[in-house]
Amino acid sequence: MTSTTSELSLDEIFNLAKAALINNGANEENADAVATTVTNAERDGSVSHGLFRIPGYVKALKSNKVDGSAKPEIEEVTPTIFRCDAHNGFAPLAHKYGLEKLIQAAHTFGIAGLAIQRCHHFAALWPEVEAISDEGLVGLTSVSYTPAVAPSGGTTALYGTNPMAFSWPRPGKNPIVFDMATASMAKGEIQIAARDGHSVPLGTGLSPSGELTTDAAEIDKGVLLPFGGHKGSVIALMIELLSGPLVGETFSYESKERDNGDGGPVQGGQFILAMSPKILSGKDTSSQTEDFLEKYKSIDGVRVPGARRHNNRKDTGPRQVNTALIETISNLGS
Amino acid sequence: MTSTTSELSLDEIFNLAKAALINNGANEENADAVATTVTNAERDGSVSHGLFRIPGYVKALKSNKVDGSAKPEIEEVTPTIFRCDAHNGFAPLAHKYGLEKLIQAAHTFGIAGLAIQRCHHFAALWPEVEAISDEGLVGLTSVSYTPAVAPSGGTTALYGTNPMAFSWPRPGKNPIVFDMATASMAKGEIQIAARDGHSVPLGTGLSPSGELTTDAAEIDKGVLLPFGGHKGSVIALMIELLSGPLVGETFSYESKERDNGDGGPVQGGQFILAMSPKILSGKDTSSQTEDFLEKYKSIDGVRVPGARRHNNRKDTGPRQVNTALIETISNLGS
Repeated sequence: MTSTTSELSLDEIFNLAKAALINNGANEENADAVATTVTNAERDGSVSHGLFRIPGYVKALKSNKVDGSAKPEIEEVTPTIFRCDAHNGFAPLAHKYGLEKLIQAAHTFGIAGLAIQRCHHFAALWPEVEAISDEGLVGLTSVSYTPAVAPSGGTTALYGTNPMAFSWPRPGKNPIVFDMATASMAKGEIQIAARDGHSVPLGTGLSPSGELTTDAAEIDKGVLLPFGGHKGSVIALMIELLSGPLVGETFSYESKERDNGDGGPVQGGQFILAMSPKILSGKDTSSQTEDFLEKYKSIDGVRVPGARRHNNRKDTGPRQVNTALIETISNLGS
Repeated sequence: MTSTTSELSLDEIFNLAKAALINNGANEENADAVATTVTNAERDGSVSHGLFRIPGYVKALKSNKVDGSAKPEIEEVTPTIFRCDAHNGFAPLAHKYGLEKLIQAAHTFGIAGLAIQRCHHFAALWPEVEAISDEGLVGLTSVSYTPAVAPSGGTTALYGTNPMAFSWPRPGKNPIVFDMATASMAKGEIQIAARDGHSVPLGTGLSPSGELTTDAAEIDKGVLLPFGGHKGSVIALMIELLSGPLVGETFSYESKERDNGDGGPVQGGQFILAMSPKILSGKDTSSQTEDFLEKYKSIDGVRVPGARRHNNRKDTGPRQVNTALIETISNLGS
């Protein structure tokens, strides 16, 4: 199956995304924040988090699950803890409001935390942690979602695909950053493998009868497993706790229970941590980190996390976008 | 191969450990702190971190790599960041001094960090995080060590076995706690499998020529891999950064370079984070967490992380200890 693509400049991608959001009830600043996130994903070659997500955002606006005019409110709980009530809005505007205070507090106190509540997160996590590292700080964040992954040893979905992202600052350079699901594979990847008749590695998931299988179609009907067996499973559990009760929000199974099932992003929490290496260590850690990276890069076969995206980012020219997707988005609510 | 064991009460285990440390130059409060950690490991059935470690502690005292009379100093860098100079001592006393301040700050500000420097860590990590959760807080900690694990894709050791531990408080109950190496398997486990001629799962490590193998003897001569492939590898990388430059200490490869190779624990850093769910969430999260745990435990085949140790802990009676090990420790420095 081939698909035709069309060239769109980054500005055109932004305008396409923003218009679809505005046409479906988002206000200017929400549409702007979401369209920026979507455009940055396309810019970095992270297409699964780019325009591809716009129909989902629009579904949630149309069903009134998400308030496209939400104004996030930030409460300074202590000088180092901020609680953001996203008021049923999308995550990007909550980040715009919350990260500024988080970063300022981490610069002053060395560490700070942001608890985001009543928020609909539907994007990658690297934008948040990269924004933190651009200010010389370490960033860590996680969200949960709806049950799709069985705890190791079990056969019943309990965890979301539960991603976490981490970023380490490199002054004047792109940070070291990873953003990964704790599921062995994304649900969409399984579906594509099933469609194309490809097998997947043993350990990716279970058949409906709870057996390990390499058959993607069976896993699609069954359940995903966490990456890395028991160890990955406890990290997925940690993310349930950090993104749920720690920030005053729901576990994945609770998020699903209150969702209207419209296909848009469910409501849930997000935990964001920022720390200052300068304050914790008492020194400038840049040259030590660069020496380490030199050693790291000298090992054949390894790559610096985030480098592929950062490399794509250098290209400011147009991007190839699926023509049918452009068509779909253009017609949304017009 | 069978080994004879002897029964020792927890008090006898403590006294045996403490005497060996005192006889080799540790002062009262250091010997007390280390012997308590060792005894608690035996109590919980975590024998690889129990008396088994005493010969290593003693080696480091004998070579004067570790100062058995070290007095840790805590600096309050900000109201939420503490830096502990362990003064070349063992970790348990640094914890005793540092955790109290960390916990107090987390109760006041919702979040706090402890950067431990010039410390020799040779124990499990769950004692630190459990101490934090016993006070109603979330604990997270990590240490690096010396290179034994190749980054995913590479064939050269760069990471330590790099453990991390996490703990979630359950008021009046034992916390949810995990403590795991990011290596696929402990070096000692590989050596035992090699000795007994057992094979290990593919992905555990590489042969000296850099090939994936299930032959434990080949991996013992080659290099370990992180758990969970590329995803586990970036978590090991995160631990290098958190336990090294973030806290003003060394990467694993730097720790090895400055070590005297006496077989005792290398000097390195430790990062400890404490957070208050009550302050971040703005509510009491206990019943929500207990409901989640009920759901979790209802899934066949899963177990609550830490439950095995907590179950062993209920037994206050004597423990079975390898007789030859008791003999060895009794003779240390007497």
